[in-house]
Amino acid sequence: MSDEPELRRDPVTGRWAVVAPARAARPHELGDARPRCGPAAALACPFCEGAEHDTPHEVYALRAAGSAPNGPGWRLRVVPNKFPALQTLAKPQAAYGCAEVLIDCPEHVENPADLSDAHQRDVLCAYRARLAAHAADPRLAHVAVFKNVGAEAGASIAHTHSQLIALPVVPGLLQAELSGAEAHFARAGHCVFCELVERERTDGTRVVAETAYFVAVAAYAPRFAYEVWLLPKEHAPCYEAIADGAALELAGLMRRVLRALDAVAGAPAYNWFLHTSPLRAGDLPHYHWHIELMPRTARPAGLEWGFGAHIVTVAPERAASALRAALPAQ
Amino acid sequence: MSDEPELRRDPVTGRWAVVAPARAARPHELGDARPRCGPAAALACPFCEGAEHDTPHEVYALRAAGSAPNGPGWRLRVVPNKFPALQTLAKPQAAYGCAEVLIDCPEHVENPADLSDAHQRDVLCAYRARLAAHAADPRLAHVAVFKNVGAEAGASIAHTHSQLIALPVVPGLLQAELSGAEAHFARAGHCVFCELVERERTDGTRVVAETAYFVAVAAYAPRFAYEVWLLPKEHAPCYEAIADGAALELAGLMRRVLRALDAVAGAPAYNWFLHTSPLRAGDLPHYHWHIELMPRTARPAGLEWGFGAHIVTVAPERAASALRAALPAQ
Repeated sequence: MSDEPELRRDPVTGRWAVVAPARAARPHELGDARPRCGPAAALACPFCEGAEHDTPHEVYALRAAGSAPNGPGWRLRVVPNKFPALQTLAKPQAAYGCAEVLIDCPEHVENPADLSDAHQRDVLCAYRARLAAHAADPRLAHVAVFKNVGAEAGASIAHTHSQLIALPVVPGLLQAELSGAEAHFARAGHCVFCELVERERTDGTRVVAETAYFVAVAAYAPRFAYEVWLLPKEHAPCYEAIADGAALELAGLMRRVLRALDAVAGAPAYNWFLHTSPLRAGDLPHYHWHIELMPRTARPAGLEWGFGAHIVTVAPERAASALRAALPAQ
Repeated sequence: MSDEPELRRDPVTGRWAVVAPARAARPHELGDARPRCGPAAALACPFCEGAEHDTPHEVYALRAAGSAPNGPGWRLRVVPNKFPALQTLAKPQAAYGCAEVLIDCPEHVENPADLSDAHQRDVLCAYRARLAAHAADPRLAHVAVFKNVGAEAGASIAHTHSQLIALPVVPGLLQAELSGAEAHFARAGHCVFCELVERERTDGTRVVAETAYFVAVAAYAPRFAYEVWLLPKEHAPCYEAIADGAALELAGLMRRVLRALDAVAGAPAYNWFLHTSPLRAGDLPHYHWHIELMPRTARPAGLEWGFGAHIVTVAPERAASALRAALPAQ
């Protein structure tokens, strides 16, 4: 048996599995708690400035003029994942793809809400740049962009970072969303997410915050208590089209929502996912990119994993009201 | 806002959420580790014989002749969940359903593999009895039967028990399975699970164990390392049709597989789910009941939760080989 990653599809449900034995070797610096900042953690951190030799060579970076790649002088770096779930050399049956790590900043920051809005904008714009870069590879179908914060949310390194996994297939949950949105468009003649934005803004009970371009709402049928979705208010199928100004606004909105979440739910571990159109899908009339912020406020059990039904103990309307009350003004 | 459970459906993906604020009050006796047996634990256990007053009145029980309901003298009890996710009184928008707890045995046993095969057969036959009872209520569409073992798998009480959640809808993952199986039948003219059983038995690399009626295989595209499915070898759409003798055989097979899993994967937390036909669906030619045993051998992160793609670091063929080597002969 080989140790090369392999992409497998369940023949009944279509669910994808990446069988990646080499990933078992990756280090785990995090215990159970949400990461805590401290000099001891920074000392051994492979993502801090000065430890560039601990990562593979960078594929993208924002650097001071004149600084050399793979050395200090950067403010954001993207490197291939050292323990990749997929590999870039296509072989028969192998899982073709790219697994990249976006290191948000050179200092040992563990809470993404501690980044400045301008810095978080750079992170959001780096997502855009990597999506555009992967779109040029016709073998890739989709890029899963996500962030794991805290061990309970699957993070193995505390230094704030994002992951980008470029896949040769459109993954199951995104495909389900696309199909659902397409069916709604066929039925109703408009984008289901545009309808959601309008309905939530009119109703107001689940709105957490609103800016010129974006709205943050407590998910109507959440998987976890305090789950919040951030959506552009106008129809926007492709994240790649986000302008720098909108990205800066989104950065500020995310910081405020994350601060409110930390205050209300006790700094829970969380994931966020960017859901956007598949690569090269063009301007889909039925799809609308958004970010889902999913705090790990419970431990999913048999009902969730075995049947896909979720129990939450905080009504989204109460969650929104609590988050609104805890939201920093700016 | 009311505290009554409410069933909500995500308008895009169709995913169900049960919003159940009252459940936040339920006790959590378990920490992080897999439950450990001990006299201290038994003393405060609400599921032990003698503590019948700690649970709602039983709806089903196997009892010594002459013993009174809701007192000692039982060997298996089913009681309504004290902190239900759903309620039996239908109200507008309320989540109609039943949440029941099946207490496997009166002694303080924490590891289901410590039950005798005859006792585990009684548990499996109680599943059958409760499915038949709920089938008589036309407002119910499906019963989710599952077991959570260990805090990491969502268990809040260590005493071995199962949960039965009767729902007014067919939950998402089961619906996806039914649709996939139906599409395969339309294409190929036979049941996809029958094909799976035949292919796995011919190939052999993923077979963990086999008995006269059942086969246990490492899932081809698993969510977690060491995920094992137990399937009837002959076509069988409805679990309710299982005979006592087959249930006894399945009990022994489960015990052996659980012992091997404990030995190979370090007694992980796990869930098992019974996937069977919706209530009153009749003898579907395309569906085939089975049990999925899902050990929590990793912490799912953004790729799993956000995109439905799973990374496993142990190839199913290696998992099967290790489990075979650790399998008790009887």
